[in-house]
Amino acid sequence: MDLGNVGILGNPVPKRSHGAVSHLALDIGGSLIKLVYFSRNSEYSMKDKEEKSSNESLLVSSGEKNYPLIEGSLHFAKFETSKINDCLEFIQRNQLHLSGCERLGDTASDKCIIKATGGGAYKFADLFKEKLGICLDKEDEMDCLVAGANFLLKAVHQEAFTYMDGQKEFVQIDHHDLYPYLLVNIGSGVSMIKVDGDGKFERVSGTNVGGGTFWGLGRLLTKCKNFDELLELSHQGNNRVIDMLVGDIYGGMDYTKIGLTSTTIASSFGKAISDNKELEDYKPEDISRSLLRMISNNIGQISYLNALRFGLKRIFFGGFFIRGHAYTMDTISVAVNFWSKGDAKALFLRHEGFLGALGAFVSYEKHGFNDSMVHQLVHQSPISSSHGGYKIHGSQNGELKDNESIECSVYAS
Amino acid sequence: MDLGNVGILGNPVPKRSHGAVSHLALDIGGSLIKLVYFSRNSEYSMKDKEEKSSNESLLVSSGEKNYPLIEGSLHFAKFETSKINDCLEFIQRNQLHLSGCERLGDTASDKCIIKATGGGAYKFADLFKEKLGICLDKEDEMDCLVAGANFLLKAVHQEAFTYMDGQKEFVQIDHHDLYPYLLVNIGSGVSMIKVDGDGKFERVSGTNVGGGTFWGLGRLLTKCKNFDELLELSHQGNNRVIDMLVGDIYGGMDYTKIGLTSTTIASSFGKAISDNKELEDYKPEDISRSLLRMISNNIGQISYLNALRFGLKRIFFGGFFIRGHAYTMDTISVAVNFWSKGDAKALFLRHEGFLGALGAFVSYEKHGFNDSMVHQLVHQSPISSSHGGYKIHGSQNGELKDNESIECSVYAS
Repeated sequence: MDLGNVGILGNPVPKRSHGAVSHLALDIGGSLIKLVYFSRNSEYSMKDKEEKSSNESLLVSSGEKNYPLIEGSLHFAKFETSKINDCLEFIQRNQLHLSGCERLGDTASDKCIIKATGGGAYKFADLFKEKLGICLDKEDEMDCLVAGANFLLKAVHQEAFTYMDGQKEFVQIDHHDLYPYLLVNIGSGVSMIKVDGDGKFERVSGTNVGGGTFWGLGRLLTKCKNFDELLELSHQGNNRVIDMLVGDIYGGMDYTKIGLTSTTIASSFGKAISDNKELEDYKPEDISRSLLRMISNNIGQISYLNALRFGLKRIFFGGFFIRGHAYTMDTISVAVNFWSKGDAKALFLRHEGFLGALGAFVSYEKHGFNDSMVHQLVHQSPISSSHGGYKIHGSQNGELKDNESIECSVYAS
Repeated sequence: MDLGNVGILGNPVPKRSHGAVSHLALDIGGSLIKLVYFSRNSEYSMKDKEEKSSNESLLVSSGEKNYPLIEGSLHFAKFETSKINDCLEFIQRNQLHLSGCERLGDTASDKCIIKATGGGAYKFADLFKEKLGICLDKEDEMDCLVAGANFLLKAVHQEAFTYMDGQKEFVQIDHHDLYPYLLVNIGSGVSMIKVDGDGKFERVSGTNVGGGTFWGLGRLLTKCKNFDELLELSHQGNNRVIDMLVGDIYGGMDYTKIGLTSTTIASSFGKAISDNKELEDYKPEDISRSLLRMISNNIGQISYLNALRFGLKRIFFGGFFIRGHAYTMDTISVAVNFWSKGDAKALFLRHEGFLGALGAFVSYEKHGFNDSMVHQLVHQSPISSSHGGYKIHGSQNGELKDNESIECSVYAS
């Protein structure tokens, strides 16, 4: 699966009628561009119609101003940053950007504005202007990550889960007991943010050994052309072929005095020192697995040490590095569990890769740049009881699939 | 320079007369075997003779039992663990091991004993027995690292130094204000030990991203055959060719809001994602430098976070990963300085690679397994005033050279 060519995690873009797609928001990172946009339902299924009333009651109970409720879905898409032209073409073809212009009734004006975050919002601002005639309205990356995480944790049921020994367990987050927490966003690099409330946070740490390192080093070592292929490889791999274990040093024994079993990794890639092998003699699967474990474990450890500094018991891991990948999550969980002696917990997010983009998306509401714009507040739509509070298209057993979206409602002023 | 063939950091072994070499101690790690042994001076230079009296006054003032003082030198040697036969041959040829046997007057007995630490003391015990007929008396690795560091910090003047922006600065350690400190030993893997006193310590953390990772990954990526060659390469390298910088993501701009300049590394090896290049298209120099920086920075960061946990202001870095290499030390120093906002300090040790072996060496004194053995206490010999307390053969401006040893004295019972 070539990431750049497929590029879409959301539904196929719905056939567009005036106003059907709105609120495109972008997160342009070092490796990936993430898109979030809202499409209004033009037709309701029978089931949707029947349940519409419960939606409206939500509006009343929320205590918000009585804006008309627009039902629809949040869609997600991603592209490689290096293939930004594919992204521009996708936006153009589906006229996703016009939502930002139509509101002003002036598609050619300077005021055709799209919310964007990530470094690419700066780097590619001119390109977006030139090719699509739109201004990127830059939102701070950390602001957006936190806003996106808070949105997901508050609005989406069964968003957060633990993963250990192959067992996924959804965690019900009490909104009144959400803060403080540590947010670890693993993109190309890694940001670690102590979150104390809505818009109240501090980036306390980070590491440059992140998803870009896995992908970059993995590409050099295995000749894999994309991230998913590299990740897929790791399934079949055995890191013990390349990693130096405690047992390799201690002649098969544990080093019990300091609690290290013989199978503990003493030195990632350490066996490559003494093996009389060239790179080509190692299986790409084993290399990928060793690399993934090294990086996941390292992130887990640094995250825990930062959680410890601030007495944070919950660490939420997001970012596109994870991709719901079992071994990655397992390694991070084990690292947090090991170093904290069971005291701290690693939690993962189903929409992990879209924190920044979602944060940019919800910032439309926060900043309202024109009276005529659609003010919005996205709520969970308690439509599908089987998912306990919101509807996931094409989702089975809680895993995010490629053709998935979040059904939700926005308030239009 | 092939590490395995040269293998010696100490003086050429002195021509052996009965009892001239004694107290061989070994540290057999995952990548390297480190040897420390004492050779008694058979001849004194005029200068030594003149200054002998000051040595003896040290004996008196030390308040120790009045054992005869034997003057001599500590020698250091290293071999790759994978070339352990070279090490066995070196010991055999120079009859270094006989010191442990002669004391018992029985070279063939089971009781021919040599102090050894590191996992290889377990793994290679049978090999040493079979080839040299000696028993390795196993000392705990962490015990030895701490004993070795404490010995160096107390007994050797100008042992510890800071390194920043190319400036080395020796730090005078007040013996009464030495504890607590964090000892970070960077071997194949990394151990982080909180040291509270002689024999009082706890291994509080570590990381499997260490010297073995640099060497192992570096070997796969550059085809370098040994560590020193790889390290040498990094001198000429430019990590910005491969690392993704903040400026690469932000279009040349800083991300000032969170204090990241445009030249901060956002993602190690992250540029390899989007460059349309194969491994062969990158210079080995650049790869080596990027790798070295990634690992050094990571160790510096994790070390600081652990120092912070326990309120430790001083972090001593040892282990053969460092090798007095300017860029490595600089990166570690910058990392500790950056993350601690100048609050914690990275310190380095001139005899960095021999902490474990020195610890095994001084353990002869601690355990005294036979009344007839040479009990010892190694002191600094205040012979050469130019080095302020101990004599370094062949040393210039405080740098440890290949033909260097520590002149010292032992007490013989």
